[in-house]
Amino acid sequence: MAANQEEVKLLGVVGSPFVCRVRIALKFKGIEYEFLEENLANKSDLLLKYNPVHKKVPVFVHNEKPIAESLVIVEYIDETWNNNPILPSDPYQKALARFWSKFIDDKVVGAAWKSAFTVDEKERGKNVQEALEGLQFLEDEIKEKKFFGGEEIGLVDIAGVFIAFWIPIVQEIAGLQLFSSEKFPNLYKWSQELINHSVVKEVLPPREPLFAFFKGRYESLIASQ
Amino acid sequence: MAANQEEVKLLGVVGSPFVCRVRIALKFKGIEYEFLEENLANKSDLLLKYNPVHKKVPVFVHNEKPIAESLVIVEYIDETWNNNPILPSDPYQKALARFWSKFIDDKVVGAAWKSAFTVDEKERGKNVQEALEGLQFLEDEIKEKKFFGGEEIGLVDIAGVFIAFWIPIVQEIAGLQLFSSEKFPNLYKWSQELINHSVVKEVLPPREPLFAFFKGRYESLIASQ
Repeated sequence: MAANQEEVKLLGVVGSPFVCRVRIALKFKGIEYEFLEENLANKSDLLLKYNPVHKKVPVFVHNEKPIAESLVIVEYIDETWNNNPILPSDPYQKALARFWSKFIDDKVVGAAWKSAFTVDEKERGKNVQEALEGLQFLEDEIKEKKFFGGEEIGLVDIAGVFIAFWIPIVQEIAGLQLFSSEKFPNLYKWSQELINHSVVKEVLPPREPLFAFFKGRYESLIASQ
Repeated sequence: MAANQEEVKLLGVVGSPFVCRVRIALKFKGIEYEFLEENLANKSDLLLKYNPVHKKVPVFVHNEKPIAESLVIVEYIDETWNNNPILPSDPYQKALARFWSKFIDDKVVGAAWKSAFTVDEKERGKNVQEALEGLQFLEDEIKEKKFFGGEEIGLVDIAGVFIAFWIPIVQEIAGLQLFSSEKFPNLYKWSQELINHSVVKEVLPPREPLFAFFKGRYESLIASQ
């Protein structure tokens, strides 16, 4: 199925780790697509039409058919374009990839985010603890492997781009130490491999404006105390 | 792959809606398995060994290889035993099934549960509202279809057994009206089809002891106020 025979659109914002997952998958497969930048303060009619349930990005639209939820989208892309597999073909390995990518969403993303953007000390402490526990499980899981997917990136690596690129930014802003080479040497090594992977590097948002954006959010949060 | 050549085990508790999902999938496929009843107040070494991350049931063990997370397990079962498909083969329909089963977990299960088992009035009200909104989306989605999967049950129906069987029990105990034929006529009709489906009926836990168990929990919660 040649990418240029398809109508492929992605509704997103550049700074979102969830949108970035989809961009990595598309780039990895070599799929051409139109990126429709959303303004989340004033959502487009298209976004509301295509994702009436969550009204969130990313929304992937393939020949007019919309799909929401980043991991669901990545699996769809992998099943539709068969080159450069993202999920393993073996059902057990596939189940493990789904388990760990769900783990990242359930146990790491929310906790790490709230660690940085929570004012209440006790609540923040709880989230720091949960994020550290989650990262420790991933540290034990990656071991000496280059990627969670093995020699090439896979679903868990794509899900984990939040850890590799977004956590270092938000922890610096909030003056936290969640993720470092001292605490999690194997996972840190993996994160460097990931953000320097030729495909990932090309689709990561530029660090400086993202840093400034989150810093602004953090400062207004602190000021609102 | 004949079921009797396989070693198939399920670690679970009878009253869990998540364990029930796996039992429906196994029964639907006609797979023989050994059910290992866990005591969650005193978890077995096997559970801790096989699910060190979450230490929760269900854990599915196929030829010594463990898998956790009910929806991940159901997909694994579907990919390993090909008779009686649970997910559609079309990638887009498959993505929708994954979207809606994730929706049930993210937007309905937790909110409905907390609606019944939360003492704080404001918190309870918020959860009731969220559960009702979630159910409304499902009401709009099921429309006139027999099952979310079409003429036969599929992933979303299996995920939705919590709505069809568990919500009526917990709402009665807590004196709530979340899910009724008046509020959600199509979804209610679906729920009756589901709990009377020959496979589902056989694996649902007996209602009376489950009701008594949850009633006990509810009463101790109220007494602890």
